[in-house]
This record gives sequence, structure tokens and C-alpha cells, in this order.
Amino acid sequence: MNYNEKSFALGSKRSIIREIFEYSKVRASELGADKVYDFSLGNPSVEPPESVTNAISELIAEFNPTALHGYTSAQGDVQTRKAVADNINKRFNLDLSADNIYMTCGAAASLSICLSAVMNDGDECVVFAPFFTEYRVFVENSGAKLVISTPEYKTLQIDVNDLESKLTSNTKALIMNSPNNPSGVVYTEEKIKQVCELLERKQKEYGHPIYLIADEPYRELVYGDIKVPYLMNYYDNTLVCYSYSKSLSLPGERIGYIAVNPKMLDAKKVYLAVCGAGRSLGYVCAPSLFQKVVARCIDAKVNIDAYKTNRDLLYDNLTAYGFDCVKPDGAFYLFVKSPLKDATAFYEKAKEHEILVVPCDDFGVKGYVRIAYCVDYKRIENSLDGFKALAEEFEL
Amino acid sequence: MNYNEKSFALGSKRSIIREIFEYSKVRASELGADKVYDFSLGNPSVEPPESVTNAISELIAEFNPTALHGYTSAQGDVQTRKAVADNINKRFNLDLSADNIYMTCGAAASLSICLSAVMNDGDECVVFAPFFTEYRVFVENSGAKLVISTPEYKTLQIDVNDLESKLTSNTKALIMNSPNNPSGVVYTEEKIKQVCELLERKQKEYGHPIYLIADEPYRELVYGDIKVPYLMNYYDNTLVCYSYSKSLSLPGERIGYIAVNPKMLDAKKVYLAVCGAGRSLGYVCAPSLFQKVVARCIDAKVNIDAYKTNRDLLYDNLTAYGFDCVKPDGAFYLFVKSPLKDATAFYEKAKEHEILVVPCDDFGVKGYVRIAYCVDYKRIENSLDGFKALAEEFEL
Repeated sequence: MNYNEKSFALGSKRSIIREIFEYSKVRASELGADKVYDFSLGNPSVEPPESVTNAISELIAEFNPTALHGYTSAQGDVQTRKAVADNINKRFNLDLSADNIYMTCGAAASLSICLSAVMNDGDECVVFAPFFTEYRVFVENSGAKLVISTPEYKTLQIDVNDLESKLTSNTKALIMNSPNNPSGVVYTEEKIKQVCELLERKQKEYGHPIYLIADEPYRELVYGDIKVPYLMNYYDNTLVCYSYSKSLSLPGERIGYIAVNPKMLDAKKVYLAVCGAGRSLGYVCAPSLFQKVVARCIDAKVNIDAYKTNRDLLYDNLTAYGFDCVKPDGAFYLFVKSPLKDATAFYEKAKEHEILVVPCDDFGVKGYVRIAYCVDYKRIENSLDGFKALAEEFEL
Repeated sequence: MNYNEKSFALGSKRSIIREIFEYSKVRASELGADKVYDFSLGNPSVEPPESVTNAISELIAEFNPTALHGYTSAQGDVQTRKAVADNINKRFNLDLSADNIYMTCGAAASLSICLSAVMNDGDECVVFAPFFTEYRVFVENSGAKLVISTPEYKTLQIDVNDLESKLTSNTKALIMNSPNNPSGVVYTEEKIKQVCELLERKQKEYGHPIYLIADEPYRELVYGDIKVPYLMNYYDNTLVCYSYSKSLSLPGERIGYIAVNPKMLDAKKVYLAVCGAGRSLGYVCAPSLFQKVVARCIDAKVNIDAYKTNRDLLYDNLTAYGFDCVKPDGAFYLFVKSPLKDATAFYEKAKEHEILVVPCDDFGVKGYVRIAYCVDYKRIENSLDGFKALAEEFEL
């Protein structure tokens, strides 16, 4: 073989989201950007908090640039790690130290590092449908097999019976993503307790730990009084993967962390496995300037009012037109049941109204499209006639 | 198994450099920092060019923060990639486009992505001793086997006969690092031509490409009139891994690139394999702010006069005392033959004079220590008595 065929396949198979992105650019140049209603990308539309921009300027003024931009230790600057641990402790009544935190280049890095730290060839990792499609890539890169647990379709909550049927003695980890991409659903405390009880029982039965990997880039993006349970408070063998991409609107800067629950079995060894996995994947340290920004902006978060307003406008109108979807409590996605069995066929129909949504057949459930509402309010307003016409076309 | 043992081993085996770093901190707190002569770390001591700090401030002032810190495409911002390609073309008389450049989180990411893009399980990757120890980690993570080619010991140049004896039909790639870490040696054009001729012949013989991976973080750090040949001009199947860690003194910011030679066999497919490898290792995009900084500072480089002055002071004195080492033309390391057969034993002896050097038994040649001279001039001056005493102790 001339090169790595698996890498080539991953690089050449254009994702549907990317395809839509390219189509959208072409169409916008033909019609004008305000005539194309692109809801395909999960790219934050709300500005970073002002404290972020201020922190960058302050750090440049205060620090010697060699120190500011120099290597940190592989696990991250100790002051940043301490700030992260203290913040977790304060909010979730826990007792983490800097040595339970490993700074990363964002959530994708957090996940691939965690998986390489705990999975062995032939292990299985369960994901809850609907799930972010890149999970498959990260799980398979770690040498493990992806297993999909299907949801309760009415609520898109976890179906604990289905989960139990998917667990085997090869199950080594689960990835739980709440608030969920693509559904916006926040898993209830009741469900989480049931899952954790099941996992405790199965760990004993199988005689080895089952790791719960919490993928939490959307934790701060919840609307109303909804609480997102912190998994370390329910289950010892929990690793938390976090990213500031959404909470500080810094997706391009690649800054996040892994928190290893100190109560985990062999917690220190698992932490060292995280360090080793980061090393072997080529991560030297998380970007140093933004490590320091995070430490200074640890309590900041973006103003999510705009996302909530967008959600309400879109959800209220689409359901009034007859579309079927679960009201999302978090993230910035609406997950809508396709009026056609074939979500891609519906995506093509929507395109006729210049509405671009993502058909979600790769997300582990069939017949849904994802609408990312992290866009200008105007874009949603202007798209509503199109959605209404679509509803009429399908006699919803 | 409870977690991944290989990751655990990589995370828990403290590197000697790290051990020295910790010892150095303790010793400095006991004696005062100016009494400990730590030469262990390859951390740039020269400030980034002023244009870098200015570019950050300008970008913050000019850009909407959502755009500045937003995702770029996975391969990187097109303007940055174009700036990189143009810069390569201008300097090395080549014809690359933005589509031959893939922006990365630094040289370690570049290497691990390149290796995952081209290597298959069971392939072999040749490295030239002395070599940067992390190559072993990246090569093994890609599923390949590391093969060491030993140098001509007098010059530490490549021994082409030894290289030929190490090539097999499983050889898929070589990593060439010039200026070299740890020796500071720049491989001559003559050697490079011989290597490339050999590889051309072997490619035909084996019936598959052999990729030459140029690891070039030290390219801009050369002293005097030395030219560092650009490998794409000598060999089509070349990938260049670059980092701005040293040339702009930004090691913590993790910014670099991979350049895929457009003349390579299946160049577009290999580029896609690079994209796929980056995706599976969890790299979403290179840090966005620093991608834009690089585009604006494409012609900048740190003032290397301080490194040259350091080199001269250290080399001239150590050789005058009787130490044996090749004069380094680049990078910021002096690679000194240990007066004791056992480099670690010599390292312990040097410690008695508060001099901290790195014993290099893991670098593929036995009996050497590395002295990183990216430090204050004063530290070198103050260490000279200790080096002199050591030389007398060993009757050099």
C-alpha cells in the first residue's frame, strides 16, 4: 500500500455538513447571503465575553512574551489547572486538585486522548443515539468498536433497557453528551441514576471498570431552570471532557480539558494514561496564551439569551406549522423529525426553499434533520415562510 | 485490562529531561537560581519578534472576535495556507499552492499526523541517530516500527552505507531532522543527494514509494553561511513538517504546518490522508488566532545572534578544555562526547558542579550528552569554571 487507506478514506469522504457548507457558499454568491438560510454549522454566533478580549490584552501587557508563549508542562499550566479544579469544586461540591486536570486542545482532543487512555483493542464503547458523528472516528482510532444505544424516540432520552441489552463483557466505556448534539436534549437526573446503577452492577458482573466519559462542550448552554447533573457526583469512574469552544465562543482556539475523577479506581494511573495518550497522539501542551486566558475568565460565559430567543422563535413556529420535534433544553440545535422517511430526500426538498438543514442518518437514528440555530435572528425570521411552505407541501 | 497499559507506560515513564527539570527546580531553591547551570531544556530563550506581539494586538483591534476565534477549515485558513505556500515558493523556487499546506498544532502534531497518513501496520520508519526521542513514540503510535541508522561518528553526518543496510521492502518512510536535535549538525547537500539517489533506487526495487519526512523546526536557526537544502528540491516524495516554535519563539502556542510536495506520487491522495489522519487524532484545526499571526509575520524570525554568541562561547571554551564535540551549525544544542563511557555517570559527575546536561542514551547513540544553549549568556559564563574542573577531573 502506498499510504494509509483508512486515513485517506477519512480525509476524502466529505461529510454532509461540509458539502452543505460548500453548496451554501455557491448559492449565497448567486442569490445574496440573506436569501440563503443555512442552518448546517454548529459555529457559535454569540461573541466571546468581553473579559476574554480584555484578558488577551492584559496578558500581552503584563507578561514577558517568552514566558507567555512558552511551553507549559504537558498536563498544562498549574495555575490554570488549579483554577479549573476550584471552579468544578465550587459548582459541583467536589474535591478535585490541579493534578486531576489535564488541559487539551479542545473537546475532540479530550475525547481522543481519553479513549486512547482507557480503551484496548477489541473493547467496546457505547454511544447514545443520536450522537455526534465524529465519535465513531475517535472510538475506532483507539482500536475499539462503537456500539449504538437507541433512545426512547418520544423524548430522545436514554432507553435504559436498550442500553442494558448493548452491554457486554467487552464494554469498557460509554460517551454521554448532555446537552446533546444533535438533539439539544438534557438527560434527566432520573435517567442518569438508572444508567449509573446499571453500570455499577455490570462492573461487578464483568470484573473490570466501565468508564463513563462525559462530553460536555454544551454544559453552559442551557435555557430556563434546567440542571445538568455533574456525572462525577453519580459515578466514580467518570472522566469529563470539556471545551471552551461554546461557553467562551472560542472554537478555533482549541482549548479545553479532561478531568479525571479522583474517586475513580486507579485514578492516578488513569491520569498518567491520559498523559501518555496525549503524548503519543502528538499533543505537547494546550495553547499557552489561551490556557492563561481561561484561568482569568474561569467564571465567564457567553450571553446565551440570543440562543434562547432563537430557539423559542424556531421551536414555536415549526411546531405550530406541524413539525415534530422535542423541545431542546440546551445546546443550539433543533432535531426535527423528517416528514419523509428518507431524511436526505427531505433535505433536498428544503433546499428548494433555500433552507439548509443537516440530514442525520449518520447520527444513529434515521429520519431526522438537525437545525443549528446559532445564527442571526433575522435568518430564522426570514426562513419561516419557507418552513411554512414545506409544512403545507407535506400536509403536516 | 483496566486502562491502556501502553498509554500508562508512556505517561508514567518520566523522561530524563523532565527528571532533570524537577531536580533543577529543587536545587535552585536551595542554592539560588544563578548557582544552578541548567542546560537541559530546548525552550527558546530569545523573545518572539516584535511583529508577533503587534500582530496579536492588531488582529484583536481589527477583527470581530467571533470571526477571529472561530473555527477555520480543518486544513487551516486559506489565506494563511497561501502565505505559507508563497513563502516556500519564494525561498526555495517551488510551486506550491494553499492546497499543499495543512496547518497543525506544531511539529509533534505534524509528525504524528504525517506518520498516521502514510504508515501501515508493520511498515518501517528509519530515523537518523542521534534523533529526538519522541520520534519513537510517534512512529509506534502509527503502528510502524522504528529503525535506527547510525551516523558517521566523526561528523555525525548520515552514514549512507549504514542507511542502505537498514532499508528493507518494509521501509515506508524516513524522518530527516536538519538542523538536528540533539547534535546541531546540518546535513550536507552531498549527503542529501546520496540519500535521495539511494531512495529513488530503492523505491523502484521495492515497487512502492518511500516517503521522506523533513522535520524542520530548526530550519531558521543556522549560523554563518550555512545553507539547509530544501528536500522537496531533491526528492519528490517529500513531506515537510514545520513549526514556528523556534523561528518565532512560540513553542507553547502549538502552531506549524505540513507541506505535501505537489510532485509526490498521488500527492492529492496523500494530502487527503493527512486530513484524515488529523481528523482521527482529534485535531479540529490549528489555533485560529495564531494562524492569522503566522500569515502576518510570515517573513519574521527571531534574532538568532544571541544563540550564535552562546554557541561560540560554549563551543570555544569546551573544546579548549579538551571536550570532544562537532561544531553545531544550527539549532541550539551542543552534543558532547561523554568522557566516561556511561553518559549517565558523566551526567552525575557534572551535577556535582551544578551543571545539568542531558545524557543521550535514548537518542540512538551511546556516550553523549546534550547541552541546550538557549539560555542566558551569563549562565554559560558562570558554568565555565565547572566545565573546566570537569575536564581536569577527567584529564582531557
